[in-house]
Amino acid sequence: MIRVSVFYSNESGKKFDIDYYRNKHMRLVGDRLKDFGFVRVEVDKGVAGGAPGSPAPYVCIGHVYFNSLADFQKGMGVHGTEIMGDVPNYTNIEPTMQISEIVS
Amino acid sequence: MIRVSVFYSNESGKKFDIDYYRNKHMRLVGDRLKDFGFVRVEVDKGVAGGAPGSPAPYVCIGHVYFNSLADFQKGMGVHGTEIMGDVPNYTNIEPTMQISEIVS
Repeated sequence: MIRVSVFYSNESGKKFDIDYYRNKHMRLVGDRLKDFGFVRVEVDKGVAGGAPGSPAPYVCIGHVYFNSLADFQKGMGVHGTEIMGDVPNYTNIEPTMQISEIVS
Repeated sequence: MIRVSVFYSNESGKKFDIDYYRNKHMRLVGDRLKDFGFVRVEVDKGVAGGAPGSPAPYVCIGHVYFNSLADFQKGMGVHGTEIMGDVPNYTNIEPTMQISEIVS
């Protein structure tokens, strides 16, 4: 299984609308990619860092699961412009992305 | 549910023994924290970044799930020194940690 993780850095003065992200953006992602190996999404809200009293490095992390990397790439080839175009509707943080293979 | 994510940056010249991490370190984590709300672990092996041809930001990400933040903190209070002391056995990358609440 492939996990696509999208990280939103915890930067002061930036906005992140987690309700829009959960209820609208992730619904768009699932709807557009359901024919491209999409499995499910998970949304992490940052609570804390590792050191006592430290802030979470990321205000939010979205995880999108796919059956294969090729599926995800095909889906983003078709719908990526629309999906990425929705980002300014919930945040002005520049997202970073990691594609991982879940090995355990 | 709480997800504790541990990030290992993809830095050149560093080592990361993913077999040790999966089979020994994560087994130690589960064994020591099983009485402290530990649920399960997942291990992500970095495959790629978001931009075509870009490397994964993290060579590995470990996710450890707990019933509550208080459970995790109690468990680390008792076993944290032993768990963190095992890190040099599989990597010389300085890990960063995020504690998240899984909200979707």
